[in-house]
Amino acid sequence: MDELELIEEIRRRFGTEASDRIKKGIGDDAAVLLPSRGLLLLTTDIMVENLHFDLSFMSPRDIGFKLVARNVSDIFAMAGEPEFMLLDLCLPQQLLLSHQKRTVHEFVEALFDGIEEGLKRYSVILIGGDLSTSPGKIYLSATLTGSSERPVFRSGARPGDLIYVTGTLGDSSCGLEILKRTITSRGGEVTVVKDTEIPSEIKKPLLKKALSPEPEPVHKKINKINAMIDISDGLAIDLWRLCRESAVGAVIYQDKIPISKEVREASRLLGLDPLSFALSGGEDYELLFTTENRVKEEGITEIGFIKEGDNLSIIDGSGIERPLKPEGYIHRWGQK
Amino acid sequence: MDELELIEEIRRRFGTEASDRIKKGIGDDAAVLLPSRGLLLLTTDIMVENLHFDLSFMSPRDIGFKLVARNVSDIFAMAGEPEFMLLDLCLPQQLLLSHQKRTVHEFVEALFDGIEEGLKRYSVILIGGDLSTSPGKIYLSATLTGSSERPVFRSGARPGDLIYVTGTLGDSSCGLEILKRTITSRGGEVTVVKDTEIPSEIKKPLLKKALSPEPEPVHKKINKINAMIDISDGLAIDLWRLCRESAVGAVIYQDKIPISKEVREASRLLGLDPLSFALSGGEDYELLFTTENRVKEEGITEIGFIKEGDNLSIIDGSGIERPLKPEGYIHRWGQK
Repeated sequence: MDELELIEEIRRRFGTEASDRIKKGIGDDAAVLLPSRGLLLLTTDIMVENLHFDLSFMSPRDIGFKLVARNVSDIFAMAGEPEFMLLDLCLPQQLLLSHQKRTVHEFVEALFDGIEEGLKRYSVILIGGDLSTSPGKIYLSATLTGSSERPVFRSGARPGDLIYVTGTLGDSSCGLEILKRTITSRGGEVTVVKDTEIPSEIKKPLLKKALSPEPEPVHKKINKINAMIDISDGLAIDLWRLCRESAVGAVIYQDKIPISKEVREASRLLGLDPLSFALSGGEDYELLFTTENRVKEEGITEIGFIKEGDNLSIIDGSGIERPLKPEGYIHRWGQK
Repeated sequence: MDELELIEEIRRRFGTEASDRIKKGIGDDAAVLLPSRGLLLLTTDIMVENLHFDLSFMSPRDIGFKLVARNVSDIFAMAGEPEFMLLDLCLPQQLLLSHQKRTVHEFVEALFDGIEEGLKRYSVILIGGDLSTSPGKIYLSATLTGSSERPVFRSGARPGDLIYVTGTLGDSSCGLEILKRTITSRGGEVTVVKDTEIPSEIKKPLLKKALSPEPEPVHKKINKINAMIDISDGLAIDLWRLCRESAVGAVIYQDKIPISKEVREASRLLGLDPLSFALSGGEDYELLFTTENRVKEEGITEIGFIKEGDNLSIIDGSGIERPLKPEGYIHRWGQK
């Protein structure tokens, strides 16, 4: 398979989606679009093998779907509608995927299945990208455009705002922990190293959230959101980011943080703390937002409030307040 | 250095550029822009270590500048003005750069110098991106937006159009050949393995073109361009791409292809064919366009014409016509 064949394959699969906004899609030096009516949103997200995904427990389909979903989550966090995507794809010339018995071409087909599913799920159209071989791992990146009449920034939180989160937190990182304990990759062979004895009805929704998260927007349901961020690196660090941009502090209540019964039960069986999955686990792709109004919506939970200053704290069940540290997934380089 | 510090560094350096089009730049889930007046152009370009650049002979500054320039070239090829950029950066935790005595932080500073120079050179503003560690090589990607009132596509060439190219062709690949012969990297040590004895006044402009190309637009000088493409993979393959999108054939004249005296002289000394640098060397970032009108502009050369059908041919100095094969840089994967 060469670059020209791969581009043909992409055009066959993705190049036929119709939109009168597209003046030129895949197959030129750049894509050409009629501008959006609202403001233009632009986001990009990288996914690197062995860092953002592991082929020993993540299927190419899941990788493709998640690449779309991660970017969509960023557009939802701005109160926007996702619209068009560019795809960067760096693939090694030979994949070390013997345990999955896949050629590069089969891998790409399955990856494209997942991307296609993601695009359909969120009404996004692929309009271009770039391809390359890779001298090492698989590198993927997508740039997603969106539009919004009234975008919501991280910087809009005001003292007195209530803090809300969607869904439950920690499911994804708890699911990842189970995957890591259940399966390992040794020289390309998948080996079950430990049966964690977590019942399937507990395990299944957690793995689903880890492997194939499906972000949902909230801006159509909620009036007057003041500030919003997606929870991708962990509640603690993402709340810290929002507060920092808004130059405010926050208090959250430990008992109010929505933790699923699956995370509680799996944590008990694993001997781990469910709260730490929820606070610093990351990869949830839920939304955290602040608003002056009380929200009564299923699946949306009030967890605290915004205050003046720059301190973040968490109050536990006994009423004891302690500082909330910005812990979560942070990339680090070299020596400090 | 961690992700938060690196984002701070990027905001200090790039986050202060003013434009009333930017409603939110670096530091949110997505950038927010007022839409362009013209049509919106979007392109993306990947640069991977040891494939698109080699740290043994390319400085971080040159890598950064070229990342911007490659993307700008795509916008110029659509007859557009470059506007805003997103940057994806994947850096290994420890760089194997002992021969350059650089820490990751010093590498990043020098890379940003080059990116900043590129942004200034082309009046582009950085509005966002994504960062990650890399489990292997350095991986860079940029997405560039542009605007154009009247974009030019690859698909607009008509039989009878004249074919023009800007600048001279083959300089970059000839420069790269000299670099490869002059310097090699062994276990992180730079060793001069062969002095090619090419005089410095010949070598210098070729290395400049290989390491730090500066694309120039033509659409402001030329009326009624019917089709355009940038020459990034080689004249032969990029002309083939343009003809394919336009469903036409082409004839070019070997003697008309603009080859610099530096490429001719260096080729003689290296014992290589200057024509093959020009036809299939790639990385020139010159523009190829077709128009019905005769163009008389310095630095723009007529090399042939568009005809019906789908054959591409080249006529040599003796008047002998042979097929022009779409040779040039093509990524390949696995077994055919």
